[in-house]
Amino acid sequence: MTKIGVGVIGTGFMGKTHALAWRNVKAVMGCAAAPELAVLCDTPLDRAEAFAGQLGFARATDDWRTLVADPAVQVVSITTPNRLHHEMALAALAAGKHVWCEKPMALTLAQAEEMEAAARKAGVVTLVGYNYLRNPAYAHAQRLLAEGAIGRVAQFRGWVDEDYQADPELPWTWRATLAEAGLGALGDLGCHLVSLATGLMGPVESLIADTQVIHQTRPLPEGGRAAVENEDAASALLRFAGGAQGSMVISRSAWGRKSRLGFEVHGTEGMIVYDQERMNELQLYQNRGPLAEQGFKTILTGPAHPPYGAFCPAPGHQLGFNDLKVIECAALVEALSGGAKAHPDFTDALVFERAIHAMAESARTGQRVTL
Amino acid sequence: MTKIGVGVIGTGFMGKTHALAWRNVKAVMGCAAAPELAVLCDTPLDRAEAFAGQLGFARATDDWRTLVADPAVQVVSITTPNRLHHEMALAALAAGKHVWCEKPMALTLAQAEEMEAAARKAGVVTLVGYNYLRNPAYAHAQRLLAEGAIGRVAQFRGWVDEDYQADPELPWTWRATLAEAGLGALGDLGCHLVSLATGLMGPVESLIADTQVIHQTRPLPEGGRAAVENEDAASALLRFAGGAQGSMVISRSAWGRKSRLGFEVHGTEGMIVYDQERMNELQLYQNRGPLAEQGFKTILTGPAHPPYGAFCPAPGHQLGFNDLKVIECAALVEALSGGAKAHPDFTDALVFERAIHAMAESARTGQRVTL
Amino acid sequence: MTKIGVGVIGTGFMGKTHALAWRNVKAVMGCAAAPELAVLCDTPLDRAEAFAGQLGFARATDDWRTLVADPAVQVVSITTPNRLHHEMALAALAAGKHVWCEKPMALTLAQAEEMEAAARKAGVVTLVGYNYLRNPAYAHAQRLLAEGAIGRVAQFRGWVDEDYQADPELPWTWRATLAEAGLGALGDLGCHLVSLATGLMGPVESLIADTQVIHQTRPLPEGGRAAVENEDAASALLRFAGGAQGSMVISRSAWGRKSRLGFEVHGTEGMIVYDQERMNELQLYQNRGPLAEQGFKTILTGPAHPPYGAFCPAPGHQLGFNDLKVIECAALVEALSGGAKAHPDFTDALVFERAIHAMAESARTGQRVTL
Amino acid sequence: MTKIGVGVIGTGFMGKTHALAWRNVKAVMGCAAAPELAVLCDTPLDRAEAFAGQLGFARATDDWRTLVADPAVQVVSITTPNRLHHEMALAALAAGKHVWCEKPMALTLAQAEEMEAAARKAGVVTLVGYNYLRNPAYAHAQRLLAEGAIGRVAQFRGWVDEDYQADPELPWTWRATLAEAGLGALGDLGCHLVSLATGLMGPVESLIADTQVIHQTRPLPEGGRAAVENEDAASALLRFAGGAQGSMVISRSAWGRKSRLGFEVHGTEGMIVYDQERMNELQLYQNRGPLAEQGFKTILTGPAHPPYGAFCPAPGHQLGFNDLKVIECAALVEALSGGAKAHPDFTDALVFERAIHAMAESARTGQRVTL
Repeated sequence: MTKIGVGVIGTGFMGKTHALAWRNVKAVMGCAAAPELAVLCDTPLDRAEAFAGQLGFARATDDWRTLVADPAVQVVSITTPNRLHHEMALAALAAGKHVWCEKPMALTLAQAEEMEAAARKAGVVTLVGYNYLRNPAYAHAQRLLAEGAIGRVAQFRGWVDEDYQADPELPWTWRATLAEAGLGALGDLGCHLVSLATGLMGPVESLIADTQVIHQTRPLPEGGRAAVENEDAASALLRFAGGAQGSMVISRSAWGRKSRLGFEVHGTEGMIVYDQERMNELQLYQNRGPLAEQGFKTILTGPAHPPYGAFCPAPGHQLGFNDLKVIECAALVEALSGGAKAHPDFTDALVFERAIHAMAESARTGQRVTL
Repeated sequence: MTKIGVGVIGTGFMGKTHALAWRNVKAVMGCAAAPELAVLCDTPLDRAEAFAGQLGFARATDDWRTLVADPAVQVVSITTPNRLHHEMALAALAAGKHVWCEKPMALTLAQAEEMEAAARKAGVVTLVGYNYLRNPAYAHAQRLLAEGAIGRVAQFRGWVDEDYQADPELPWTWRATLAEAGLGALGDLGCHLVSLATGLMGPVESLIADTQVIHQTRPLPEGGRAAVENEDAASALLRFAGGAQGSMVISRSAWGRKSRLGFEVHGTEGMIVYDQERMNELQLYQNRGPLAEQGFKTILTGPAHPPYGAFCPAPGHQLGFNDLKVIECAALVEALSGGAKAHPDFTDALVFERAIHAMAESARTGQRVTL
Repeated sequence: MTKIGVGVIGTGFMGKTHALAWRNVKAVMGCAAAPELAVLCDTPLDRAEAFAGQLGFARATDDWRTLVADPAVQVVSITTPNRLHHEMALAALAAGKHVWCEKPMALTLAQAEEMEAAARKAGVVTLVGYNYLRNPAYAHAQRLLAEGAIGRVAQFRGWVDEDYQADPELPWTWRATLAEAGLGALGDLGCHLVSLATGLMGPVESLIADTQVIHQTRPLPEGGRAAVENEDAASALLRFAGGAQGSMVISRSAWGRKSRLGFEVHGTEGMIVYDQERMNELQLYQNRGPLAEQGFKTILTGPAHPPYGAFCPAPGHQLGFNDLKVIECAALVEALSGGAKAHPDFTDALVFERAIHAMAESARTGQRVTL
Repeated sequence: MTKIGVGVIGTGFMGKTHALAWRNVKAVMGCAAAPELAVLCDTPLDRAEAFAGQLGFARATDDWRTLVADPAVQVVSITTPNRLHHEMALAALAAGKHVWCEKPMALTLAQAEEMEAAARKAGVVTLVGYNYLRNPAYAHAQRLLAEGAIGRVAQFRGWVDEDYQADPELPWTWRATLAEAGLGALGDLGCHLVSLATGLMGPVESLIADTQVIHQTRPLPEGGRAAVENEDAASALLRFAGGAQGSMVISRSAWGRKSRLGFEVHGTEGMIVYDQERMNELQLYQNRGPLAEQGFKTILTGPAHPPYGAFCPAPGHQLGFNDLKVIECAALVEALSGGAKAHPDFTDALVFERAIHAMAESARTGQRVTL
């Protein structure tokens, strides 16, 4: 496929990010194929039209089914609230469209499984938006592990914290409900951490977890307060299939943390540390050289950490969040052009999402859950 | 008691630290009472004598029972390997001596309980060496919580990592045995973290934990390898009696970490972060003032954080590890002088040690343990 | 002007950055006007054509005079090596085109003055590429100063270091010559620092400086070594017209520094610290509140720091280097659309460049230079 | 000399630090000789007596001439305000006493020169209190340079900032006068930085400097305001005899800085960075190994950095400010016992003090001063 007609559903945080990525992927990364911004969907229509004009889409609609059916659209970006992913993805797959869907795939594991089965049946290209996997610093951490730079991997420590639900007096919204939002911090944040962990450590074998509703109620606009149904925070102890152990801590109510997604990997010869709030840095300790000169190195990413160089030939000049989505989009374009499979497709991503649902289950039952 | 005759058993890491603390506590802190360095015990005798000469003890012995029985000794510092604490402490208590014992109290919980009962019966002053509790930065964190500086406390995240057992080829020693060392990382490191957590969050109500032997065997000097019996690493999910939740990660095999003992306390109005590797700093985030100016503050300790000023009138000039032991000793001298009870005495410390044994038990059984 | 025809000369580091900025400025920032990528120029022609195809320019040329003359081009981006800026800018101005020129404007101050005079005469819009001025963190620092957040400003400390000329065995190139490169570190890096200082402190009144050639010769490809004619490093003491003092240190041979451009501003009530290597952070200390809680705040930029929000609605998610150029381009589009003057235009930038030439002069003469 | 009778004049910040160092030097460092705390002097007498009792001095006096004359005193610690150093040191030297004097040696260079000549004539041991030279992290930096770890040394960047004079409304004191305090920030802080620079780079050959009175007046207790006569801040450009260049920035009015004394050394193969506010860390970058793994290493000091191990056998456990003075005292005891000369003695220190007076002179004249 050298012509890629793009439809994007949604114009919020992720909608704009997808649209910019589609718009720039060839310019930045030099892909052979050139995406064409065909249709943009949002409601109300004038919002969709304004955004289409700004982003350069050929046309706008307020009906996502029209977008999915449009013959100019070969691939659909689904960036709507999580509760809509399932229906939209199934419809797009049924129409034979390729799908780039934001995470988490769906509110329930059953929905995600249905989507994965549909994707396999459709035989199209899918990709789920685990953008942090695209950071050149993360990719370099993976290379270091593969090269044995820190020996045998023994432990993983992961954290992901933001503070968008930290304020006790934020009004109650649908985000607090199981029916419309499903999981809380686990769905918003935890699955990102699982994606990073899996890419470094391989699959999780079993886990024990606990969850916490920090703010039991939130104020209603009309007065009074309503219950928060899903978790503000979660934590888990993990065993990986490869023999390592790990832990994860997750919160959407962690004051001061804005995008704190990171990990330590403990190896028998060293350690790697990463934090998304300083996304252009990677920390590396190796038990090498004189003891008096050992220490954690702060590595600033640069052209030595592909594909940083596609953005900037000068090291340490810094990539940003939206750049990660461009790299993600390039993997999708590669797959759409007949190249390597995009990772994580619906099958890969289902593994991540099983883990967060397992955490929720373990927290409910108090028992270890085997994946 | 204005005259305090001191006997110190052991001249290793902790032995020297105790001796220096006894030597300096009045000079630095201005205590009314003046400790007298009466007897130092170690084996062989010439080591004890050399050390007594260097540190200024009146006499040396290689027989700790002689020290305990010496009428010039009112308080005994026990700084020997953990397996010896139990017998020495019981003997000292039986002789009516006050006891300053290093942590952990003993190899087994049963031993620790026996020590605690003996201490209560003896009615003497006891103190267990949880020196990190003495950091003015930590004390300030406690004050901030008490003042509500970060609102209601919701989560605790703790870590304690060193790398003294990270090298796979370190020779096997008695430290790897349950019989002579008891717990591994939990006993060496984990109990410190529990002491910090308890002082901030109150008592742990229940926990689930996992442990890990990262290096299953170690080389023997005579060739071949022997099994490591106790844990290199541990992790736990906690529920505090006050309603908060928490997690702990603990490792003695964490490359690059030298004294990484720290925590995050998540509150409903802010967060506090601390790390012993930068022990003169405290991080504080508060949801106050304009959003555009919110951020974590790095507070350098100084005279505004007592008793820093006893060491130095200039802020940010830095205290060191040995200074913490002087502060600890001052609390003991205060208690010996009829002032406030020293914290943590054997009764307080038993609570910390219950928690690490509960972690070991939970790891064995796979079940939540209620404390 | 609602239609902006763009010509870009050069396809290197800055060429790609300009092209991406033109391509994205409306999509990201929602400008009313829509730039059209008309002509791209580089040599050889096939390079220009390939790049034009990738970036989406309507056509390519290997003759920059053709580009300048093209009626579809209203604004010319000059991103070629510094020695070419002067001729190209004069030609573009003579043709009545608006000009976006990379810094430094020219090799000599005389050339820059000629360009500035030509720009004033032409009455067109000009902009010089001082992209670090666009960082929302920097803009916030300016706002804080304007609001008096740190009181009266007393001192400026600035540094700018990279290591692209740190290796003694890097081959000799034209960059080492006065004739083809002009100034060394002052031209590449120092002028950026001057731009930041001026925006915070107002104009420099006088300065004393020193320069240093760290690597006196460099190896020639054909064997032997040739002299390095321009400075690897420079330092200066400054007096600002407003009464404050300052210092600057500048090096292109500072191992490990990749994009370390930063400053401290010392005020009578606080301090602000910034470093481009952590470009999404700003440090702020204010003498406010209890002494025990004072410290430097690490502020992560977010939507509270415009125009961060145009890129991402979530704070702390990080902008990147290329995003700065989009913000810069938006200021240019605004000016081209009849809005506020773009800053720094040729007249503003000439002030910055006078300062670096004054540093070179002071280093030569050993005397204070008044600006 | 195996018996060292000690007299300490002064009981303020430095007085206590000296007393503690004398008290602990043998206990910590294992020196052969044992200092005896003979006489303590301060006024009024009851303050001296209280302090002597606390610190363990045999007797107290309020007359420093009595202390100097006391036959039990072989070495005199001078820790009084700077204006008193000259007279006291001359008297002690005249009495044939060894002298440990706090920095700066005197208010004027002429006084310091007189003291140095007297010391040479007396043939006794002298030491000036440049305690930051004693940090194991600093000593390691010196070793790294000597081993060529960063190649040829090309640049020095130094800074020393505190905020004890940052508040505009601090009352006027004698510290603001030339007659009683002499230099301002240069004398309090700048000479420390010079000592560090000299130990790394060798002697300064010439310099240009500027100084600044940030707060021109300060309030008088009785109402009204009085002029500040000495500098709040200074900055300098340096040329070292070895060919390297350097810069220094110095302020006593730098809000938020508590003990920020540090440097960068730029070499042709790497860089070393140090800051006293994190005095247990040293940063090292070396152009070695794969580019993708290069970065600044944060080295935590430990027993591999002598004499850290005398304080603590565990790395990363942190030394404090007072520990530096113990190390300094050990060098003095070594010299008093017939071992290596203590550095910096009055002759060495005079070199440092020449540099700060040269800075003041250059600031006055506007000319480069050759040392």
